[in-house]
Order: sequence, then C-alpha cells, then structure tokens
Amino acid sequence: MSQRVRRTAGDACSFRREPRSSRAGLRIVTDSLADALSRIVGPRWVRQRASELATYRADGLPTHESVPRLAVLPGNHDEVIAVVRRLHLLGVPFVARGAGTGLSGGALADRDAVLVVLTRLAQILALYPTRRRAVVQPGVVNARLSDAVRRYGLHYAPDPSSQTACTIGGNVAENAGGPHCLKYGVTTNHVVALEVVLPDGSVVRLGSPQGDPPGPDLVGLFIGSEGMFGIATEITVRLTPLPAAVRTVFADFLSLRAASEAVSAIIASGIVPAALEMMDQSCLEAVEASIYATGARTDAAAALLVEIDGSPEPVRVEADLVEALLRRHGARDLRSAESPDERARLWQGRKKAFGALGRIAPDLVVQDAVVPRSALPDILDRVAEIRDRLGLRISNVFHAGDGNLHPCISFDRRDPALTERVQRASREIMEACLASGGSITGEHGVGSDKLAYMPMAFDPESLGAMRAVRRAFDPAERANPGKVYPVHACREWRRTAVAESLP
Amino acid sequence: MSQRVRRTAGDACSFRREPRSSRAGLRIVTDSLADALSRIVGPRWVRQRASELATYRADGLPTHESVPRLAVLPGNHDEVIAVVRRLHLLGVPFVARGAGTGLSGGALADRDAVLVVLTRLAQILALYPTRRRAVVQPGVVNARLSDAVRRYGLHYAPDPSSQTACTIGGNVAENAGGPHCLKYGVTTNHVVALEVVLPDGSVVRLGSPQGDPPGPDLVGLFIGSEGMFGIATEITVRLTPLPAAVRTVFADFLSLRAASEAVSAIIASGIVPAALEMMDQSCLEAVEASIYATGARTDAAAALLVEIDGSPEPVRVEADLVEALLRRHGARDLRSAESPDERARLWQGRKKAFGALGRIAPDLVVQDAVVPRSALPDILDRVAEIRDRLGLRISNVFHAGDGNLHPCISFDRRDPALTERVQRASREIMEACLASGGSITGEHGVGSDKLAYMPMAFDPESLGAMRAVRRAFDPAERANPGKVYPVHACREWRRTAVAESLP
Repeated sequence: MSQRVRRTAGDACSFRREPRSSRAGLRIVTDSLADALSRIVGPRWVRQRASELATYRADGLPTHESVPRLAVLPGNHDEVIAVVRRLHLLGVPFVARGAGTGLSGGALADRDAVLVVLTRLAQILALYPTRRRAVVQPGVVNARLSDAVRRYGLHYAPDPSSQTACTIGGNVAENAGGPHCLKYGVTTNHVVALEVVLPDGSVVRLGSPQGDPPGPDLVGLFIGSEGMFGIATEITVRLTPLPAAVRTVFADFLSLRAASEAVSAIIASGIVPAALEMMDQSCLEAVEASIYATGARTDAAAALLVEIDGSPEPVRVEADLVEALLRRHGARDLRSAESPDERARLWQGRKKAFGALGRIAPDLVVQDAVVPRSALPDILDRVAEIRDRLGLRISNVFHAGDGNLHPCISFDRRDPALTERVQRASREIMEACLASGGSITGEHGVGSDKLAYMPMAFDPESLGAMRAVRRAFDPAERANPGKVYPVHACREWRRTAVAESLP
Repeated sequence: MSQRVRRTAGDACSFRREPRSSRAGLRIVTDSLADALSRIVGPRWVRQRASELATYRADGLPTHESVPRLAVLPGNHDEVIAVVRRLHLLGVPFVARGAGTGLSGGALADRDAVLVVLTRLAQILALYPTRRRAVVQPGVVNARLSDAVRRYGLHYAPDPSSQTACTIGGNVAENAGGPHCLKYGVTTNHVVALEVVLPDGSVVRLGSPQGDPPGPDLVGLFIGSEGMFGIATEITVRLTPLPAAVRTVFADFLSLRAASEAVSAIIASGIVPAALEMMDQSCLEAVEASIYATGARTDAAAALLVEIDGSPEPVRVEADLVEALLRRHGARDLRSAESPDERARLWQGRKKAFGALGRIAPDLVVQDAVVPRSALPDILDRVAEIRDRLGLRISNVFHAGDGNLHPCISFDRRDPALTERVQRASREIMEACLASGGSITGEHGVGSDKLAYMPMAFDPESLGAMRAVRRAFDPAERANPGKVYPVHACREWRRTAVAESLP
C-alpha cells in the first residue's frame, strides 16, 4: 500500500507514488490526486471520467492513442505553478497540452501521467506595438494574436495550417512552422523570452524581450523541446509588420519534376518568396472534389503557390520575375492575385488541403520530414515508388521552398494490414529523407510517432546529451515521460569518472 | 604533495590535482601536465614560458588581463579529443581560444587553467555548393571561408568587423554578429550542425545538416555558450548566395536625432536593408583624421551607411525608396555606390572605424549592448550625458538597424582614475540599456567584462537554470571556469527535494 502523508505545498514530502504493478492500490492514489488538484483549480477543472478523458486520447495523428490518468485545466499562472509543484511533490508524471492539433502524438499522456491542459490560459497579457512585441499566455490561439495586432499593422508570422485552432504554447513545444516560415522563419525565430515552470515547480524567466540575450540560449533550448522542460506560462513573441503589398501566383505543371525545377530556379534567383508551396495531382484531385474546390485543373501533375510580399514596387518586380521563371519551367495555367479576396481564393486549396484529404478515407496521416531542396525530385519519385509498391494513396502538399515534405497517407485504421502498410511507408519515407541528408521532422516534432527514428538521426552520445540536459531539470523525467528520445538508445553520461578524477 | 599515477587515456584515474594554495608543489604538477600534453601534440605546441604566454594574456578588450597556466595548440581533431580527455582525467580546467579577437575577455584563462588554442585546426573539411553547406574546423578564419566559396556564387554571411582575423570557432562561442546580420541573422542562424568535444572528452554530434532537427536544440544551446560546453571540432554552416546586385548609400545628418529617425523610417517602410550602420561625429572625426579617411564631412552630427542587396530590379527600387526616406529625414550629403570599388570606399570608414579610434588614445574599449530600436535616440542622449559628466571621449559606431550599440571609450589604462571612470561609464551605459528593455550584449558575449551585469539581466533562478545545464556536462565547471555567470548569483537547483519525493 502507498504511504500517504498530506503536506502543504512547498514542504519536503514523503508522499510516495504507488508502484505501477499494484493496480488495486491505484484507485486510491488517483482519487487523492484528483482531490489534491481539485483543491487548486476547483473540481470542475479536473477531468477523470472515461467519457471526459476520451477527448484527450489522441491529437491530429490518428495512429497513436493513449488515455491519461486524469486531466487538469488550471485557470491562471498561479494555478499552473501550484499544480506542477503538487505533481512534483507526489512524484507524478505530467504532459502539457494545448489545443491538441499536433501531428506527432506529442501531447499524449499514458495512464500513469496527468494531462495539464492549458487552453484556459488564453490571455494576451501585453502588446508593445512600437517595439513589435507581445506577451501571451500559452493557450492563446495562434490566429487570435494576429487578429489582435492587425490594427497596429502587425501580425504574428508563424502560420501553421491549424492556426485558427492551435495555441502559441503548442507552437512553442513543437517549434511549429507554416507556409510563410520560408521567408519569416519558424517559431524559434519569433519567440524572444519565456517564463517557464520547470518540472519541479520552480519558475525561471529565460531570454530577453530584445532577443539574442547573453549566456547560453535557454529559450532556443525550450522551443521544440516538446514539454520535457516543463510549461511556458508567459511567451514573449516578435510581431512582424504586415507587408504593404502581396502578390500570390498559382501555377500548374504537367510534370512533378518540372514543378520541382521551377522551385529550384526561383530560389536560385535570390528571391525569397514569403511562401512557396507545392501540391501534387492526388492533392489537387481531393481539393477539387471537395467543397473547397478552387477550379484548378486536376490533370496537372503538380501546382505551385508562390507568394511575394514587401513594399509595392519591389513586390511587383519580384513577382514578375517569378512568373517569368514559372513559365520558363513549363507552367501551364498561371493565375495571379493581389486583392485580399483573390488571394484568399488561391490559398483556399492549399489551406484546406488537409481537410479535403481527410474526406477521401476515414483516416489521414500527415507525415513530416525535411530534405535538401536539391533532393526534392528524387524524394518525390521515391515516395511514388513506395506508394505504388505498398498500394497506398499518398498525396503530397508541402513547403517546397524549404524542402519540408508532408506526404499524406489516406487509410482506414480499422484495417490492421493496411495500417501496418501505412506505418511501413512512413518508416521507408523517413529512411529515404535521412539518406538524402534530411531530417525526420520539419515542424511537427518527434512526439510518439518519430521516437523510433531518433536513433537513426542521432548517435547514442548525442541522444545521451539531450537526456543529460533534460535530467538537469528533471532527474526522474516526469515531464512528458517517454517522449523525444527512446531512453534505451541514449548513452549514459559518464558522471562517475568525472567525480573520481576531481580533488 | 600531489599523487601522480600515470594512466593511459580512458582509464579511470586517481591522478589528483594540486590544491591551489600549495604553490611549492605547483611547478611539479605543471611540468608533468606539460609533459602529458607534449606527448599528445609534440613539445613544440605546448607553450609555458612567460614570454610565450604573454600573447594570450588579453583579447581585443584592454581592460581585462590574465595569464594561463600554459597553452596547448592541438593540430588535429584527434589531438583535441586527447587533450580534453587528458585534462579531464587530471581535473584541470581549460579555456578554448581562437584568434583572440574577442571583445569581452571570453577566452582568457587564469593560472589554474590551460588555454586550448585552436588556430591550427584551420581546414575547410567539405564544401557542398548545391546544398549551400560547408563543414569547417574551428580555426578557419571567417573571411577565408567566404573567399573559398565565392567561385560558387556563395558566401558565409555573418561578418564581424574582425572577419579577416577572427575564427568561425570563436564566432560560434560568442554568437558573433556583424553589419550584414541585420538582414541575414547572427551566427546562430548560420550554423546547422556541430561536432563537440564535451568537457569530459566524449564526442557528440549535434544538429542536422538540413537545420531545425528534431529534439531540443543543442546546437543553439552551444552557440554563444562561450566555451562552457567544450570545444567544437567540426562546424557545419549555411552558405548564402552572393546577391546579384548591391547598392550602398552613405548619408550624413546635422543632428543625431534626425539620423535615428531616418533609421526608424527605413525599418517602418518594410524594407530590410542588408546593413544599416550609424557613426557619430566623434567617430567620423577619428576616421577622417586617419589613413582611412573617406572624405566625409566632420561637421556632421552622424552618418548612416545603408546597404540594399538582392536581385537587380528590386534593389534599384528599394534603394531609391531608401534615398527618398533619408532625404525626407534631413540627409545632407548623400552618396550612392554600385560598383565594388565605390562600395569598398564607402565601407572603408565604417570597417576601419575601430582602427581609427584606436589611434586617438593608447587604449580603446568597444562596448556592446542592445536596445529596442525605438529607444535609440534616448540612449544616445544618455551616452552623451555620461560622456560629458565623466569627462570621457566616447564615440559611437554601431548596427543601428538592430539597435546594437557600440559605444567606444578612448582612454589610457596607465591612468587608474581615468580607467575607473571608463568602467563606471560602461556600467552606467549597461544599466541604461537594461532599463530601456535592452540587453547587456548584442554580439560580443559575456566573457569577463559582463559577468557583473548578468544578475541585473537575469534573476537567480534563471542563472541557476544556466548553471544546471552546464553542470549536466561539466559538474566541476572546468570548461571556461568562472565565465558566463557569477556562481554566487545562481540559485542552487533543488535536486534533493526532487530525489526525496520520488519512489
């Protein structure tokens, strides 16, 4: 039986956690844990019924499911700290979660862990339009921040496809990208300071509102660390001026390779488009068969969406150059938009592509990997070969400008043999991307889905270095346990040898 | 007496270090240390005579001096590893050093520590022009890399003023910037992967050639960490296309505030110049009185140097806009250059400014701080007030576009009262920059010079977090000991409480 001694927060504590094998005792501990958390956030904000927890069993990736022990929804900064301290004193693992739109299973918790849901921390705490900074809570929805600062001629640049639902906190955890990150950079380029509740409940302020602060870059370390260093309660971000002019160009091609070569030609010209997106035929077909149809011709092998922004005159000049390059590389239909309405129409097919693809089969895996831009044509050939050999429907819609692939595999998870082929295809695509000099994720993170690939991307010493940093703050690895790297693949740090050799 | 037991590298070791107080015994240990290192690198590459060590007593900042115990110059990758392992087994602290052009005293070692000088590791190991990547050793001189890739139409973008002497390894340690980092970003934006020898001699490969790899960003953590995580032996950097067109505009102003407002107007226009530099009257006078004279009028209160690069047509359009904005904000003389020769002439005054300032007094402190761009006029007023009150000559030459100030204080360090006023001025400038929402360094690092200001920039928990990360790899803090943060200002991590509360 567990020994339960109730202490006030802050005390050293001998409250011991139930061994995992003793299921008979677990209920008692769970009840007491729910009580303890209810005293902090109120009983309404602790969820423990199976029907309530079902909401949290997956994120946007249908191949991974896991039900947490319970979910707690703190309502403010102090409650987050109190919850984390309480979990620390109880030795209970926890997983932070935003809107649950992730695509790698990063915010899944198993039955040993508590899910700390941050959607109630949704305040924009401060705006500094002149200095182009905002301070937000983690639960602020990405697009809401841009809406709030539009009247100052500003926006928050990283724009994941899920931006009307996903939260800035989740973006920070996964170092999220988006179509316009080609020019503007991913989340890590837009966050300058953080207040973080570490896994032991202590609070640190990292970075500087001005950016590039002295000392080791702990802000950069935290961004993309998938919750393993705790919970960000305040996030200071850069705001970016809305461009004075934008031109969006849509072009379709009769060969995938021609479209890839057009991408290379645009980049080689020295122009940095705000966005440079590619969709293949399968994706165009799905979009045109859906309510998001844009009138694109589905006999095209691929289409590119290129956006140029900046001051009006340079935009005109660069967009004309881009159109000339597209034509030179075999663009067939070429449409160009400057008004917000026309622009929205051209973007609709791209922005709703995942939704359209989600309609052609019960389930959709949106994969994520990066390759050198020069390897794009070969990798697309390889994805097609895998698709044909395994008999899958794989559609491609992705950030071509930065080589960030998103092969989308449509399937039905009730078919175990099919699901197994989906997983085999994912693995083969990852292997091909690594072999080309690329990486196993561009913007979705490692989560649960990419864990097995981490030892393909890093040697045991390098994984051991990640683990050593984590353990500096969290020796028991309670924050998002089991994520980021497989523990068995990490070389243990040689602490003993160091200690022995010192006076 | 010390107990000396010779072991082969890799053995657990009981070789114990002499207590610092026992000076009589120190010579023996030093000799044996020199022997041990000589066996690795050859006796020619171990320096221990006072005359030899004098070279290493300072970097480019004249207010800090310190002579190392000895200096070792490994000649290749394996020798670096063997040296670091040997120092680890002996429990001897060490400091890595490149060309010694730093401006914060970051690469100074005291008499307990060994200086590991990396200038012999000067090979460009691999070039991948299509993928725009290079792999270099840490001792490669910054400008040499750009020279080597020019034939492919590429360059390495970060360009510190010392770029003809400073090394990429040193740039990595201090997260160096430069005039063109306004558009292209500082060192951390251009390094994608590292091979690092950690303080215990183990080797880790961090990052991915493609950039933005999965897991916590250990590359970003290492860059700017000033040697506290060990020594980078291989650095994989991004290469950037040489712009097809460049236009450089020089404009002078009769008021400092007018020049500051022109800076704000250019940034507000949405144009991102490649460089946007400011020089004040004192700096212009020093340049025009030197062999680097450019014909600028020294009755101007300030001058701006603005560079636009990219494709020819957009450059023309944007540069015309910039010239119009400069005129509208009171620019008097306005010169514009497009040919490489004309461009070099306009840059000469800026690039040689530190050299010219170095001639007007025996010593020069180049300070470094960041302020929000909107605070520039007020901070420049404040610097002038400090200058007048303390009776100092302070010249300003700096990266105005990103608010990165470089107040340059001319003095003679043989005058202790004057030197004390220089230090008081530095401190007051740092305080003013912090109060404006800025930071105590933009690109020179903390080193020895900014240590005392770190507790003004960070609270004890945040400094404690930095220390916790360092100690994960280096529990005795042997790598660049005493740098980055003052140990007394760090809150100790609550490891005991965590351990107690876990089963």
